[in-house]
Amino acid sequence: MKKVVVAKEILKANDAIARENLSKLDAANIFCVNLLGSPGSGKTTLLEKMTPFLKGQVRAGVIEGDLATSEDADRIEKVGLPSIQINTGGGCHLEANMVANALDALDLSQFDLLFIENVGNLVCTAGHQLGERLRMVVLSSAEGDDKVVKYPPMFQKTNSVLINKADLLPYTEFSIERVHEEARRLNPDVEILQASARTGEGIEEVAEFILAKRQEWLEAR
Amino acid sequence: MKKVVVAKEILKANDAIARENLSKLDAANIFCVNLLGSPGSGKTTLLEKMTPFLKGQVRAGVIEGDLATSEDADRIEKVGLPSIQINTGGGCHLEANMVANALDALDLSQFDLLFIENVGNLVCTAGHQLGERLRMVVLSSAEGDDKVVKYPPMFQKTNSVLINKADLLPYTEFSIERVHEEARRLNPDVEILQASARTGEGIEEVAEFILAKRQEWLEAR
Repeated sequence: MKKVVVAKEILKANDAIARENLSKLDAANIFCVNLLGSPGSGKTTLLEKMTPFLKGQVRAGVIEGDLATSEDADRIEKVGLPSIQINTGGGCHLEANMVANALDALDLSQFDLLFIENVGNLVCTAGHQLGERLRMVVLSSAEGDDKVVKYPPMFQKTNSVLINKADLLPYTEFSIERVHEEARRLNPDVEILQASARTGEGIEEVAEFILAKRQEWLEAR
Repeated sequence: MKKVVVAKEILKANDAIARENLSKLDAANIFCVNLLGSPGSGKTTLLEKMTPFLKGQVRAGVIEGDLATSEDADRIEKVGLPSIQINTGGGCHLEANMVANALDALDLSQFDLLFIENVGNLVCTAGHQLGERLRMVVLSSAEGDDKVVKYPPMFQKTNSVLINKADLLPYTEFSIERVHEEARRLNPDVEILQASARTGEGIEEVAEFILAKRQEWLEAR
């Protein structure tokens, strides 16, 4: 019993800090995207490949969440996006206070769009608001089409799903229809995209989707 | 601070229950394997495909861990292995007390080998002993070869790693050498296997590896 109570209190505290992050980002006119998905679903490669389609349109940056290493932040810096690494020290998800520290370390006047690449995890990351305006779950076709029913909170709590690694579809038994149907059943408003970050197929459309969502947000303010 | 203390106490309690599970399994001459890995790494398909190589050698059963649904347990029953489903109700990993309940529900005199298929998660499952004698981490080639350095606790705490989805190696940039090198650096005793559960390539060898580990354990008692 004790454990459950503590977990709820921690989540409540997390959500309060997430709201503070959101206010800070709003004040700086920054649209924030929380990228989620299993380990190896292709989140970092997606960011690398979207960079050319974002440049000249918005000033983008990345907050990288990992248990250990700065491998992903180094990859992101190489394609020319400013990035900041959060190491959770073994923690399985980012929490809003970690993002708050990262925001304090950044010059927010330098950004229009901020990605948070969460720790690779299809469970624990779903429960933690960070200050994002948009969530995108990256699902690799190699993971199998049963992931929506097997990990429902992740798909219930997202705005969008990107079916990634479309180049591997011919070599797997992955039903795109099944994912569409089951994701919409859990979450009627979810938007579903498809791409291959490896080959670049569909990546411009993903960048345009995110830019359009930012535009909608700006106009609705 | 409070959070850390509670987490440590919970882990200590978990390990005590895991030791009780181990005693119960030992008394029943059951060798228990904890199968771990990311969502969609291929754990259930591996169990399905190993079944023909286990039959006639040992009486095997499966404890299936999932957030929701009995999809995996249904798949396992279809290939003729008795199985029992644990739904964690959103929890991201199995804990020893859940396995203790499953053991109470099984007739242990009916088994020589028990697999526990953990929740798909490359982080939180690593910290929880369940009563296993052998851990096997299933890593899909489509997940990328950077997973060992990025998720070190999982690879430090395992006895073996199975590089799965070998059939996708030609379509990915996955360096088997990198995984071998980095896994051995973290964990010099780790044993690394390679297979494709989808095509069946290498699966007999995985089954033989597990049977040999069981035999070693029986002889050392």
